[in-house]
Amino acid sequence: MSLPAARTVLIVSDHTGLTAENIARALLAHFPGHPLRYVRRPFTADVMVARAVAQEVSDLAARGERPLVFTTITRPEVLSELQSAPAQVFDLLTPGLDVLEQEFGRPAARHIGGHHDMHDPGEYLGRMEALDFALATDDGIGERQYDLSDLILVGVSRAGKTPTSLFLALQHGVRASNYPLAEDDFEREGLPAPLDKHRAKLHGLTIDPRRLHAIRTQRKPGSRYASLEQCEYEVRRAERLFQRHGLPVRDTTSASVEEIAAGILNSLRRG
Amino acid sequence: MSLPAARTVLIVSDHTGLTAENIARALLAHFPGHPLRYVRRPFTADVMVARAVAQEVSDLAARGERPLVFTTITRPEVLSELQSAPAQVFDLLTPGLDVLEQEFGRPAARHIGGHHDMHDPGEYLGRMEALDFALATDDGIGERQYDLSDLILVGVSRAGKTPTSLFLALQHGVRASNYPLAEDDFEREGLPAPLDKHRAKLHGLTIDPRRLHAIRTQRKPGSRYASLEQCEYEVRRAERLFQRHGLPVRDTTSASVEEIAAGILNSLRRG
Repeated sequence: MSLPAARTVLIVSDHTGLTAENIARALLAHFPGHPLRYVRRPFTADVMVARAVAQEVSDLAARGERPLVFTTITRPEVLSELQSAPAQVFDLLTPGLDVLEQEFGRPAARHIGGHHDMHDPGEYLGRMEALDFALATDDGIGERQYDLSDLILVGVSRAGKTPTSLFLALQHGVRASNYPLAEDDFEREGLPAPLDKHRAKLHGLTIDPRRLHAIRTQRKPGSRYASLEQCEYEVRRAERLFQRHGLPVRDTTSASVEEIAAGILNSLRRG
Repeated sequence: MSLPAARTVLIVSDHTGLTAENIARALLAHFPGHPLRYVRRPFTADVMVARAVAQEVSDLAARGERPLVFTTITRPEVLSELQSAPAQVFDLLTPGLDVLEQEFGRPAARHIGGHHDMHDPGEYLGRMEALDFALATDDGIGERQYDLSDLILVGVSRAGKTPTSLFLALQHGVRASNYPLAEDDFEREGLPAPLDKHRAKLHGLTIDPRRLHAIRTQRKPGSRYASLEQCEYEVRRAERLFQRHGLPVRDTTSASVEEIAAGILNSLRRG
């Protein structure tokens, strides 16, 4: 018996395709176990390009496939070109736009593009500045930036501070600094001095010592830094420090940056 | 006359809320000019939490507001709690799940979470490794990494290489290196030596010299580096180099990292 063939999932957008792919993945995550092949057709913005994509779908159907097509196209003449393709077409935005037209009492723009272009330059520049901020602090010159930070991620080396702060910046425009815990910090009772006056901004990140050992081994194989013993020691001391000072803590071993960021932002709201 | 009050947009998710907010913004971008206030309620995963959110909506309605509620909750008992709230509730996933149940001939899992958790650890680790890769190359130690790169972004300092490469890594798991163009590179006819054997991977980034001047001035006010004259010179020479060697070029002045990344990936597919 052969393996089941992967089903083609076409992501068709008049712009970047990020929204369409996001929704498609959110839906298809509820049907695990089916092999899928994602094919992206961004910038499908006019009738001619849509016709070519519809032709691709026809070609797949002619070979006996049943592709799934997810689209955020809103211009009716472009959308109808795609809908003529012999496939299940998920028209992701039209139903919501129809309801919103009633709510706002005016027609939807149904233009090309949308919220991933620079329609709000201030918001976009805020994200880019937050990214610069995260990169600057990541170089270890961050202590004087703590005053300007929205939050400060505290953890041992390679516990996930950098990916989390970059994601917070790029996605949410949040200014996150890092504080890498080192052996010196474990030898004293209090919080590391630079953190002491920023208590409310601190978020601890921890990680399974075996996972940390694996990550550090990739970077510096055979070093004391990467040894399981050292990883266990640092994580134990870091967690003790978090606990002693009542820091909120998140475990990056099995949580994605998306999840960690959402959790941190949610706790900021409550805090 | 007072300004129109901002309308509350509630993003309600059983998990991070990224998908729900993404769709809500994609829809609402078609109704520009309405002041909106985004309120996020991630991790609304059980009936009790959903009831509390529904109560928040009721409180807003009691004050005469008409909130818009966007949700990706799929568990019926949690969803129906939210749908009892006195507001327009956009149930973003259920209609698509119903159709997919027919397509796959089996019920949707309708579990909590989804594609932003680590359901595919390989894909997630790929993104994190691509991020490490982008950061390493960004420190200027990247030349020996060009062999391993999926693509190499070429441009003058502060033209947008770093945000683009970080976004390509975090969002798409694509390994992008940077090559910063400097004066030396403008003095020779050919491509910079480290780039010569990687021609197919090169993507030029350019930027309006006045915008570059503004960005550099923020970083090093009054320097030669930041002067409009220097910015104009570098951009002109960079664009000449791109043209001479037939590099694909994108302008970061008015395109977001989302747009630039989508454009680059789309050209990789065609290339």
